[in-house]
Amino acid sequence: MEYQLTATAKHVQPSAVREILKLTQGKSVISFAGGLPAEELFPVSALQNAFEKVFRQGPQALQYSITEGYTPLREKICERMKTKGIVAKPEDMLLTTGSQQAIDLLTRVYMEPGDVLLVEDPTYLAALQVFRYQNVQVVAVESDAEGMVPQDLLAKLDQYPVKMVYVTPTFSNPEGKVWSVERRQQLLDACRSRNILILEDDPYGDIQFHPEKKYPSIYSLEDPSNRGTVVYTSTFSKTVVPALRTGWVVGAPEVIKAMTYAKQAADLHSSSLDQQALYQLLLDFDLNLHIEQIRKHYFKRMRLMTQLLAEQQWDDIRWNQPEGGMFLWVEFPANWNTEELLRLAVQEGVAFVPGTEFFVNSPKKNKLRMNYTHSNEEQLSTGVNRLARAVEKFRA
Amino acid sequence: MEYQLTATAKHVQPSAVREILKLTQGKSVISFAGGLPAEELFPVSALQNAFEKVFRQGPQALQYSITEGYTPLREKICERMKTKGIVAKPEDMLLTTGSQQAIDLLTRVYMEPGDVLLVEDPTYLAALQVFRYQNVQVVAVESDAEGMVPQDLLAKLDQYPVKMVYVTPTFSNPEGKVWSVERRQQLLDACRSRNILILEDDPYGDIQFHPEKKYPSIYSLEDPSNRGTVVYTSTFSKTVVPALRTGWVVGAPEVIKAMTYAKQAADLHSSSLDQQALYQLLLDFDLNLHIEQIRKHYFKRMRLMTQLLAEQQWDDIRWNQPEGGMFLWVEFPANWNTEELLRLAVQEGVAFVPGTEFFVNSPKKNKLRMNYTHSNEEQLSTGVNRLARAVEKFRA
Repeated sequence: MEYQLTATAKHVQPSAVREILKLTQGKSVISFAGGLPAEELFPVSALQNAFEKVFRQGPQALQYSITEGYTPLREKICERMKTKGIVAKPEDMLLTTGSQQAIDLLTRVYMEPGDVLLVEDPTYLAALQVFRYQNVQVVAVESDAEGMVPQDLLAKLDQYPVKMVYVTPTFSNPEGKVWSVERRQQLLDACRSRNILILEDDPYGDIQFHPEKKYPSIYSLEDPSNRGTVVYTSTFSKTVVPALRTGWVVGAPEVIKAMTYAKQAADLHSSSLDQQALYQLLLDFDLNLHIEQIRKHYFKRMRLMTQLLAEQQWDDIRWNQPEGGMFLWVEFPANWNTEELLRLAVQEGVAFVPGTEFFVNSPKKNKLRMNYTHSNEEQLSTGVNRLARAVEKFRA
Repeated sequence: MEYQLTATAKHVQPSAVREILKLTQGKSVISFAGGLPAEELFPVSALQNAFEKVFRQGPQALQYSITEGYTPLREKICERMKTKGIVAKPEDMLLTTGSQQAIDLLTRVYMEPGDVLLVEDPTYLAALQVFRYQNVQVVAVESDAEGMVPQDLLAKLDQYPVKMVYVTPTFSNPEGKVWSVERRQQLLDACRSRNILILEDDPYGDIQFHPEKKYPSIYSLEDPSNRGTVVYTSTFSKTVVPALRTGWVVGAPEVIKAMTYAKQAADLHSSSLDQQALYQLLLDFDLNLHIEQIRKHYFKRMRLMTQLLAEQQWDDIRWNQPEGGMFLWVEFPANWNTEELLRLAVQEGVAFVPGTEFFVNSPKKNKLRMNYTHSNEEQLSTGVNRLARAVEKFRA
């Protein structure tokens, strides 16, 4: 039979990250590629207890549930978000299969094919995949270390009939950077006055290395009495575990309701057993203390990785010193190609993600993303040494 | 802020079933509305053991996983399906968030807006919701007790540039009917020769009341050496529990691969903890024996409900005697309106789903769907009595 996939489906390529993950499943390769949290920090026994508690409640917990998600968990998440200035009602929240699904659902209910969406450049590549499926016109705004450059943002807003802006202002993927408060406010003001929706993706916000610093979400900057410009999404994948695939999204009732109807068609609801177990976990387990521990470990790993890189004394290769999140962003001389470098690196037994796929406009081939959260000290050390050998080979 | 939802999202209405479910959450209403399995038959302790076994494997089980789904579970499902003549490879299977997600993903990768899809009339309403989101042109084929009427099927195939056909041939929703083998073969032949894809939705196939009868899936009728016309989807929601939201879909590699990429964008993957627990369950638990028990209970409940209805001695109201599945389809005199009847019924303390929403063409207002699997004997008896009072009031 000859299949007639949609034009979009025909042209979709699998995510490079996931293909590399498959490549490196042989255990000899140290992978800095995936955005994986550290398994040794997973609260396994606390989760096991949480599931036991749900099972003790009897069979009703295993029945079909509402699309919106388990109400007590939504209430708990609202309580937790309030401490960070994110004020939302449980009825204006939808639980999703990871925050990835929130990006997909909002795009499906808000963006017609051809509608214009602004993003940072580079940006999260699986968000770009979503936008491609909906045939959205993605326009990149010039970005620097503090966020979108206001001048270019305003120029793009003048030039295009923009309907939505997608940003990850706190510890971005792939750059691991943080927007300044001023830039957050500028984006909010610009969108608010123009009736443009902001999708604020915040999967890494809790993974901050300097507890004294404040990174107010764009959602929290809006006047509570007159809110509605920002749709905010986050997840338990980085703070608890990824396998439960539980994320959430809050925003204006009209938008969340439309997303809920779309989710009803997409999958009826996400695993309600997992949602109930997360609620039990939040009752009994000090998640804030756990997050403190994650922060300390990841901070240590980030410092070790940057120190190991510094020891190489490359004077033409640079990287950032993230204030949080899971990624280093490494810049090589302009004529380097990190896809070629990856081939050499995998031969040496180490993997990363070449930067090209994260770009919307002309992909810069001289960048790469490295994850520091999933490797222990020994792996970090061995991995960077292997990378150094690949770099030497590339130079030769 | 003024929101600019997509034209489709603006016009979507919530599913009537789910709205009625909300209405009847007060415990005094006996609901024959939802398609809920019986909680008292859920294998709670076996599932609890299965989760414990996964947790004992340590933190790796809680990490991110592949989009395709947990490979050992896919292998196990293939083994189980083989006993029913459904031969598929694990690599041609995708695990989904319920079979609902399989319908959504296939529609997204295969149907452009305006493409023509054939369905039975009436058909599963949440499938119709999916088709509406993708702006598919849904065309209903005349159906009788044995399936789609061949003459009308061929006429529609001549009349429209049909790309896909969606059917639930075994214990359909809402009608609870079974297609004859002849009609299955006719549909397969007609689609095969015309390069048209069939989506065979089989959530209820295991719930059969006459074990000696055979209902071969359309998928299994295809020549194994030259397969590819049928995409087949099923779920553990009716045989294990719904809360785990674990379904699967098999079909041609090209189609499954496209669905996998689409799922990667939609939610990365479904709960892999739930998938691993289901695998452990299948290792230790006699699911076939469990399904035998479910069948017996549901058969008994179906017979009781039809007997209770018969005792009313209504000579103008008819219903079917399903050979399996979860639903009775009740037909009232042509001038009755079951939406009005529902209002009276809820006053009396019983709920059902009016038939109108299941129809694509002119909705028939004199039909309704009743679920018999979720109510115990007492509830069935009380519920039918309440329905009888509503019917009396309606006549008056």
